[in-house]
Amino acid sequence: MSLNSFGHLLRFTTWGESHGPAIGAVVDGCPPGLALSEADIQPFLDKRRPGQSKFTTQRQEPDQVRILSGVYEGQTTGTPISLMIENVDQRSKDYSDVAAKYRPGHADYAYDAKYGLRDPRGGGRSSARETASRVAAGAVARKIIPNVAITAYLVEIGGVAIDRSRFDLAEIARNPFWCPDAVTAAVWEEHLYAARKSGSSLGAIVECVATGVPAGWGSPLYHKLDAQLANAAMSINAVKAVEIGDGFAAARLRGEENADRMRPGEDGPAFLSNHAGGIAGGISTGQPIVVRMALKPTSSILTPVETITRDGQAAEIVTKGRHDPCVGIRAAPVLEAMVALVLADAMLLHRGQCGSAASP
Amino acid sequence: MSLNSFGHLLRFTTWGESHGPAIGAVVDGCPPGLALSEADIQPFLDKRRPGQSKFTTQRQEPDQVRILSGVYEGQTTGTPISLMIENVDQRSKDYSDVAAKYRPGHADYAYDAKYGLRDPRGGGRSSARETASRVAAGAVARKIIPNVAITAYLVEIGGVAIDRSRFDLAEIARNPFWCPDAVTAAVWEEHLYAARKSGSSLGAIVECVATGVPAGWGSPLYHKLDAQLANAAMSINAVKAVEIGDGFAAARLRGEENADRMRPGEDGPAFLSNHAGGIAGGISTGQPIVVRMALKPTSSILTPVETITRDGQAAEIVTKGRHDPCVGIRAAPVLEAMVALVLADAMLLHRGQCGSAASP
Amino acid sequence: MSLNSFGHLLRFTTWGESHGPAIGAVVDGCPPGLALSEADIQPFLDKRRPGQSKFTTQRQEPDQVRILSGVYEGQTTGTPISLMIENVDQRSKDYSDVAAKYRPGHADYAYDAKYGLRDPRGGGRSSARETASRVAAGAVARKIIPNVAITAYLVEIGGVAIDRSRFDLAEIARNPFWCPDAVTAAVWEEHLYAARKSGSSLGAIVECVATGVPAGWGSPLYHKLDAQLANAAMSINAVKAVEIGDGFAAARLRGEENADRMRPGEDGPAFLSNHAGGIAGGISTGQPIVVRMALKPTSSILTPVETITRDGQAAEIVTKGRHDPCVGIRAAPVLEAMVALVLADAMLLHRGQCGSAASP
Amino acid sequence: MSLNSFGHLLRFTTWGESHGPAIGAVVDGCPPGLALSEADIQPFLDKRRPGQSKFTTQRQEPDQVRILSGVYEGQTTGTPISLMIENVDQRSKDYSDVAAKYRPGHADYAYDAKYGLRDPRGGGRSSARETASRVAAGAVARKIIPNVAITAYLVEIGGVAIDRSRFDLAEIARNPFWCPDAVTAAVWEEHLYAARKSGSSLGAIVECVATGVPAGWGSPLYHKLDAQLANAAMSINAVKAVEIGDGFAAARLRGEENADRMRPGEDGPAFLSNHAGGIAGGISTGQPIVVRMALKPTSSILTPVETITRDGQAAEIVTKGRHDPCVGIRAAPVLEAMVALVLADAMLLHRGQCGSAASP
Repeated sequence: MSLNSFGHLLRFTTWGESHGPAIGAVVDGCPPGLALSEADIQPFLDKRRPGQSKFTTQRQEPDQVRILSGVYEGQTTGTPISLMIENVDQRSKDYSDVAAKYRPGHADYAYDAKYGLRDPRGGGRSSARETASRVAAGAVARKIIPNVAITAYLVEIGGVAIDRSRFDLAEIARNPFWCPDAVTAAVWEEHLYAARKSGSSLGAIVECVATGVPAGWGSPLYHKLDAQLANAAMSINAVKAVEIGDGFAAARLRGEENADRMRPGEDGPAFLSNHAGGIAGGISTGQPIVVRMALKPTSSILTPVETITRDGQAAEIVTKGRHDPCVGIRAAPVLEAMVALVLADAMLLHRGQCGSAASP
Repeated sequence: MSLNSFGHLLRFTTWGESHGPAIGAVVDGCPPGLALSEADIQPFLDKRRPGQSKFTTQRQEPDQVRILSGVYEGQTTGTPISLMIENVDQRSKDYSDVAAKYRPGHADYAYDAKYGLRDPRGGGRSSARETASRVAAGAVARKIIPNVAITAYLVEIGGVAIDRSRFDLAEIARNPFWCPDAVTAAVWEEHLYAARKSGSSLGAIVECVATGVPAGWGSPLYHKLDAQLANAAMSINAVKAVEIGDGFAAARLRGEENADRMRPGEDGPAFLSNHAGGIAGGISTGQPIVVRMALKPTSSILTPVETITRDGQAAEIVTKGRHDPCVGIRAAPVLEAMVALVLADAMLLHRGQCGSAASP
Repeated sequence: MSLNSFGHLLRFTTWGESHGPAIGAVVDGCPPGLALSEADIQPFLDKRRPGQSKFTTQRQEPDQVRILSGVYEGQTTGTPISLMIENVDQRSKDYSDVAAKYRPGHADYAYDAKYGLRDPRGGGRSSARETASRVAAGAVARKIIPNVAITAYLVEIGGVAIDRSRFDLAEIARNPFWCPDAVTAAVWEEHLYAARKSGSSLGAIVECVATGVPAGWGSPLYHKLDAQLANAAMSINAVKAVEIGDGFAAARLRGEENADRMRPGEDGPAFLSNHAGGIAGGISTGQPIVVRMALKPTSSILTPVETITRDGQAAEIVTKGRHDPCVGIRAAPVLEAMVALVLADAMLLHRGQCGSAASP
Repeated sequence: MSLNSFGHLLRFTTWGESHGPAIGAVVDGCPPGLALSEADIQPFLDKRRPGQSKFTTQRQEPDQVRILSGVYEGQTTGTPISLMIENVDQRSKDYSDVAAKYRPGHADYAYDAKYGLRDPRGGGRSSARETASRVAAGAVARKIIPNVAITAYLVEIGGVAIDRSRFDLAEIARNPFWCPDAVTAAVWEEHLYAARKSGSSLGAIVECVATGVPAGWGSPLYHKLDAQLANAAMSINAVKAVEIGDGFAAARLRGEENADRMRPGEDGPAFLSNHAGGIAGGISTGQPIVVRMALKPTSSILTPVETITRDGQAAEIVTKGRHDPCVGIRAAPVLEAMVALVLADAMLLHRGQCGSAASP
């Protein structure tokens, strides 16, 4: 019941703080016999890596992953896979200001109230640096479900949404915002540049689509596939909302509009729409799975904010340091990883209970 | 790892189908020495009970709960509390149509793809009837955190939102929609009446506020308090989206707008706003906890919808029977119950790890 | 993490007290499509049922099980199976003596120290009556692994061991002691008669063998198949020791004696011995699985014993009522059930991770 | 549900193989604010370290532990504690013989049957080297329950038992066998020397006593304190049996002999005996907790043994390399660690559910 673990048959545990010697993940339950090496993981870490554009933190971390166990002669053995990433650029600085005052919008006060102490260096365990471990674990999960394709992209930054009529999958990797709409990407660039310059930050909405998931994965109630995805997405730093399929918009449709009609298809039913986002009653329908999450603007801003000190005095704080002006950008590969981890686990669970699992 | 269980130290398991002899919940981990009787549970079940207005299903269920274990001489003993509710009004009817065809928007096809069979009587396990068990379990959870007040209400039906300037807590119990705005309640009544008459259904948005939660409950990562609430809410039938605090709106704020500023207060910090919905870094801040969820319109409608049969032939289906034109209404007490269960569990977990727990 | 639950993919939760209205189990994770009715469960309950001979308690319980959920048209649906057994013969009696004093050797004092209260009626939750729920759950588990045969029998009562040279499987069901050696059965009868008459009780050793388990079930470390069996056996009332294979005797062998030599067999290896009890490194080897457990003599005896009262005064206590002079007898079907539950879970886990599972 | 994890509120996960680059443990759920450094852990690792006498393997491992996370300024933070131990002496050798044939008595065949492949280098994950990670985790657990003293020692090697009348706690650390009886220690020395010389190995029995555990820890059923201890002990390499208190001997006592009589004491009851080993109904009684386990003789012996090859041919195998002639010796610190982990977890669980926990 480790609170730093996630998943059931495929279960990973992460450890490490922003400014400790290293961070890592232990992935347990991986099937044996899968080809796996650092080269399968590194590309995903590289997508999340900081310092790649002026729109993300300037911290320089190579994020080189090492596999310390669970792989023999290039194959998974079925035993725990220990993944470690060293922290290289923990820039030496003075944390006395952050240690003495709470940064509004951060976890500082809540941590202190819970634990009676906290590691103030770079946010400690609450730093988004932890998400590198998830991305590494997610790369392992993808190997378990090779027929599932998972792609996340941003659909909104600072209130500016993409134009879905210009949606182009190929565009996603061409700009630093994982934006599927080249025109909007250009707008975001200006927008973010201005926000950064004024010492502010912007929120974002990230969408993730998984195709190739057969009907039947998931479970009807407390571990509904959508409930697992909601848990997974909401566990990512700065996320404040999650939608499946049409999400909030579904609440504004009428029953006959929202029901995804079915026609005979070549291989199972052909659905005439996908308002449900690929999940009904907590179980996959075979349609693409669609998850969307909203991230707040980071509170690490140069604008001074009213706060209090640990001993209860009124104060002001400015968060200097190297921060992402829009944490949503680097959250896209993290959402992909979490979706991969949920789906691979769901496949194993389904195979366990029901004895077969289409696709993998 | 029962997939029909939820929670950690306070953990409940539900069982039962819509048209079986009974449904129930086993609540494990309840602290000993709490006063508990059926009279503590029944009022919450009565709020969720069907057949109370013309805006909910006409199925007549007394929903009388029995405590079968875990209570001795009016006090919890610390052993599992078994709660049972008999199904009384399983109206005898012909399910052959539902058994032979998939109802679009329902779990029918997904269940069949997963299990290779399903119980078609009233939706079987996928029926919202299961939520009665949650409400019963939630009433036990409330006893564990007596200083926490939890109230859910509807803020939108069929796209018609309340006017927050008319928000009146006392109004909630005065109308059949758990609506805190009397004017909007009247609009919803007409709206729902029309939808029902036309054989359609409407979606809804339900909000829940928990006050009295001290700072420090929750956990930083995969079991963040907000991630648990998202999991809990998304596990409720027909829910497609969950927000904490400002949710999606937070993604449209700037960093300095979204940060909840702190001032010295009488008893811990005084926050100048609550965009975060009472949770930072996955841990409660002492502010009210705010959760919002969107429910799709039910697909049980009289309008004929295209579908396929189990053997893959094109067909049409009309869902007769007794259905809620807006399932969001009866979901309000269910969300309250799930929030109570998450919070009581979080209190016990906090007490376990950190050795004390403010409030209870 | 319910402490009243056991298992992983196949997970059951029991509830109920000796003198409450009923007891029961919820079995979650059962594969769909298995034929199941009360008639599949009742024979196992009948084996454990009290009042069948003068060597077990005279409490009269029909132990009729009802399936309340999870089965439709005679087949499991993959949803939770709720099993309930009513308590019929909770003989009205005065519990004030037991409530005021602690019975040495019972859980009375420990429960009180933990919970600050307890249900004194018939031992409440600590009564061996709870094991009826396990037997019912175990009958479901057997359906999941139909090729596995599980048989438990007594090998020792009150220090009198069977003679293994007279071991006869067919004899087990012919005497009230599940004794595979007719000669020893007769000795036990006299022995137990004398113990009962003198107001005393006897301990016992129960052995269980499972054949038909293929190689490969289990897991290498904290959930080793033998560790799960040890947990399962030690969770049965009055059990104080567990052995796998040769158990303690293995500690007195030399390395070359203990190693089970392998020769080419028709279908996998042929082992020349089974000191290991069918498990190596926590994983089944394909040989018969052998578990043995020791049960203490019940402390419910007519001989007066020194004790203290709840308020710390010196006292004496005599445990009247209807008790088993040797609780080991009725523990045999309970051990069978626990072994079935562990093995069925292990099969599902193996299938989940490794994608196939021989035998079932 | 990671199968390489153990515990509930205090939960640790181990990873790593005998001949990989490192092994380690992630300990989650540790309370915040405990003083912890490598110096608190190293002494326990040093007790288990190989190569310290001629009676253990000659592999030279410094077993230097590093704390990679969860500690800030010398105090635990409440976040996961990652512990890593590098493998230094993975002597380069030819594993082709072990890779091609199964060693009888080892996990080789069972692993292969389960996973379809295995890491043959030094036993891979099934090597007792993994227990170093447990010992490191156990040292953290001890900090959580500082008032509990846990001591393990050997009571039998190769069938030669200690004389309890010569039991001397102080003697345990004075000989290489953790033997509390100096006379027997000398006998074991000769015995082991002879076994080693003849290319054989001996089994052992290890006992562990925990004092200072207050009444009330544990739980009545599937997670009985004794069931947890049995699971923990049986998960240690080569263990084939576990006893609590009198264990098998209890099965030969009469009810009135076995019941631990109670008298008024200064601080709770004074028990007149401890047949129960400090646990009744799965809950601690305040008496010393006594666990005993039997370890088989290792199968890594120089005597040739009949076996088969991976492709089913008859063969013989001799296990060369550096092995313990009696694996029970180094198991003593491992049992201490596992007992510490179970008890610390039980304390946290008790505090979570019941709101207080005597002793710590």
